[in-house]
Amino acid sequence: MGKNKKIFLTVGPSKLFPTVKKHILEALKNNIPSISHRSEKFMSLFEETVVNLKKLLNIPKEYQIFFLSSATEAMEKIIENTIEKNSFHLISGEFGFRFFQMAKNLKKNALAYQIDINKPLNNQKIIIPKSSEIITITQNETSIGFSFDPKIIYQIKNLYPKKLIALDIVSSTPYIDLNFDKIDLVFFSVQKGFGLPAGLGVLIVSPKAFEKALFLNKKNKLYLSYHNFLELKKYADKSQTPETPNVLALYLLNAITKDFLKIGIEKIRKETEKKAKMIYNFLEKNKILEPYIKIHSFQSKTTIVAQTKNGKKNDLILEKLKKQKIYISSGYKDFKDIHLRIANFPFHTFWEIKQLINCLKVI
Amino acid sequence: MGKNKKIFLTVGPSKLFPTVKKHILEALKNNIPSISHRSEKFMSLFEETVVNLKKLLNIPKEYQIFFLSSATEAMEKIIENTIEKNSFHLISGEFGFRFFQMAKNLKKNALAYQIDINKPLNNQKIIIPKSSEIITITQNETSIGFSFDPKIIYQIKNLYPKKLIALDIVSSTPYIDLNFDKIDLVFFSVQKGFGLPAGLGVLIVSPKAFEKALFLNKKNKLYLSYHNFLELKKYADKSQTPETPNVLALYLLNAITKDFLKIGIEKIRKETEKKAKMIYNFLEKNKILEPYIKIHSFQSKTTIVAQTKNGKKNDLILEKLKKQKIYISSGYKDFKDIHLRIANFPFHTFWEIKQLINCLKVI
Repeated sequence: MGKNKKIFLTVGPSKLFPTVKKHILEALKNNIPSISHRSEKFMSLFEETVVNLKKLLNIPKEYQIFFLSSATEAMEKIIENTIEKNSFHLISGEFGFRFFQMAKNLKKNALAYQIDINKPLNNQKIIIPKSSEIITITQNETSIGFSFDPKIIYQIKNLYPKKLIALDIVSSTPYIDLNFDKIDLVFFSVQKGFGLPAGLGVLIVSPKAFEKALFLNKKNKLYLSYHNFLELKKYADKSQTPETPNVLALYLLNAITKDFLKIGIEKIRKETEKKAKMIYNFLEKNKILEPYIKIHSFQSKTTIVAQTKNGKKNDLILEKLKKQKIYISSGYKDFKDIHLRIANFPFHTFWEIKQLINCLKVI
Repeated sequence: MGKNKKIFLTVGPSKLFPTVKKHILEALKNNIPSISHRSEKFMSLFEETVVNLKKLLNIPKEYQIFFLSSATEAMEKIIENTIEKNSFHLISGEFGFRFFQMAKNLKKNALAYQIDINKPLNNQKIIIPKSSEIITITQNETSIGFSFDPKIIYQIKNLYPKKLIALDIVSSTPYIDLNFDKIDLVFFSVQKGFGLPAGLGVLIVSPKAFEKALFLNKKNKLYLSYHNFLELKKYADKSQTPETPNVLALYLLNAITKDFLKIGIEKIRKETEKKAKMIYNFLEKNKILEPYIKIHSFQSKTTIVAQTKNGKKNDLILEKLKKQKIYISSGYKDFKDIHLRIANFPFHTFWEIKQLINCLKVI
C-alpha cells in the first residue's frame, strides 16, 4: 500500500470494501440497475443474497430476512410490528436512546434502563417489568464504543424467555458471532462492517417475532405500513420487495457476502480481535489517551473509543492525523471534542492500524 | 450507436442515463460513499441538489424537498402527515389504486373515483366530498399509460382550493411541466426519467401541506415516524437527513440534474413530445397494435401503452423484439399478455425509437 494513500478509520459510513468498485463495474456491465424487481433475474439475486447472508452469519433457515432502507427504518418496523403496548430498552449510548425515543414517539409505553458503563452488569439492578413485550439492546454502541458480550444477551433471554429480544448490530456485523436461537430481531446497515455505500438496511426476524406481528394484525392492532412484516413476508416469499428496492445495493451486498465467505468468517473474526488488541494495548499505556470504556468485557472490538486524559481537546490530535492522511471519527454529540472513535472493520488492515498507532505515539 | 447494442425501452427501472457510469466513477474517486452524512461535504451536496432540482423543475423557493427511499414511501408519508381522517383518490390504474389502498390500510376514511379512460373528464361526474382533506392524483399512470394534462389538475385545485393536491409524477418527471402554486405534494423516484439506479424517492412539499402536518402534531394526531415532516424539515433545514441516507444516489441525482440543466429542460420536453408523436402516429395506423388510451389528451408522452387488436397475445411480438435486442415492458397485472409498454424518457434517442418502430412494422 502506497504511503500517499489516505487511511480511513472512520466509524461510518466507512471506507468501501476494496472489491466494491470492481463489483459496481460488473453490475453496470450486466445492467443490474435496469433489471425489473419483478423479474426472474431479480428474484434469483434476492434468493442468493438471503442464502449467502444466512451462511455467513449462521442465521437459521426459518428466520426471515427483510431488506429495508436503513437501520433507523428497521428500528421503526420492529416497534410497529412487535409491540402492542410495552417495551423495555437497555441504553448505553445515543443509538440505544434513539430506539427508546422512537418507541415513545410511536406511542408505546417505553421504559429504559441506563447502563452504568463503569460497573459490571451483575452489580447493576436491572428490573424489567413483566408487562414488557420486548427488550431492545444495542449490542455495539457506535457512539461510545460500548459492547455487550452475546453471552450476557443469552442470559437475559434465559431470564425472560417469553419476551422478544431485538438487537442492533449495525457496527459489529459481520464480526459478532450470534446464536440466533436466543434472539428474535437483529438488524444492521451495510455502510459499516460490510464496507458498502449507505442505503440498505437488513432486518432478521425469528418465527416468534413474526408471529407477534400476526397476533397484532388479528387484534387489528398492527400498523399497516407498506413495510409491515406481513407485507414484507408476502413479497419475500416470492423473493421480492413491496417497492422498487435499491437493486444495486442488494447486488453489492451479495457480492461482498460472497467475498467474506471466500475469506472465511473465522479469519475475519480472529483478525478483528488481533487488531482491536493492538489498539487497546496501545491506549492502556498511552499518556495522552485512554480507552473510554474501562471494563474489558464491555470494550467494543469494532468501534474503539479513546478519550483524552484530563478532558483535553482532541482537535490537535485529529489535525496531526489528518496531516498524515489518517482519518478517524471525532466523538459523538457531547463527547465530540474529547473522544476519538476508531473503526476496526474487516477491510481495515494491520498496516493501517499500525500507521495509526505510530502516528498517535509521537503526538 | 452500434447495431449490436441492446435497446432498453422498459418503463422502469429504466436503462441508465448515459453519463451515470462516469458519475459513479467520479463519486468513487472522491470517496463520496464514505463521507459522513453530518459533514460539511454532505451538507453542500444536499444543498446543491435541492437548488438544482428547484431550478430544473421550477419548484418555488419556499417548498421543501425531502429525500426518501422510494415513491411508495412518499405515498405513505403523505398519508401520515396530511390526512387526519378523510382522503379522496382519483384512480386510473394500479398506482393510483395503491395510494388509495395505502390510505385505507393506515385507517383513513378513503374514497375513490375510478376514471373512465374512454370518456372526456367533463362528461364524468366526479363528486369530491366537502370533508376530503386531500385529493391524490397519479399524473402519469405507468400501468396503463394514462396521463392527466396539468391544466385539468389546476382546474380541480381551483374548484377545491382548500384541499391539498398530491401528485404522483414518478414516470413523467422531468418531462412534465408543473405550476407548483396549484399543487401541494409531488413525488417521484429516480429510476425512471432520471435514468438512475433505484433507491431514492423525492418528495416536494408546499408550505400549506407542511402546515397541515404541524396542525396534526398540535392536535397530537401526527404519526411520529422517524420520517415525519417535522423531523424531515428539522434535518433538511441543516441540509441533512434523519438517518444515514443513500449518499451515492443523492450525488448521482445532483449530477444528472446538472446534466439536464446543461441540455436544457425545454429541449428535453420538445424531444419527448416529438418521440411520443412518432410512436402514437405509428400505432394509430398499425394493423396489429393500437394505443390503449384512445382520448388524445389522456395519452401519456413518457410511458406509452399499446394493446394488441382483438386481444391477441403479445408474446410473439416481445419475442421478435428481443431477437433484435429491443426490450420493452409487457402489460401490468391483468394486461400482462395483451399490452406493450414503451418508455420514452429523456435518454431514449430518436434512433432507438425508430429502431423499435421499424421492427414493429414488419411483425
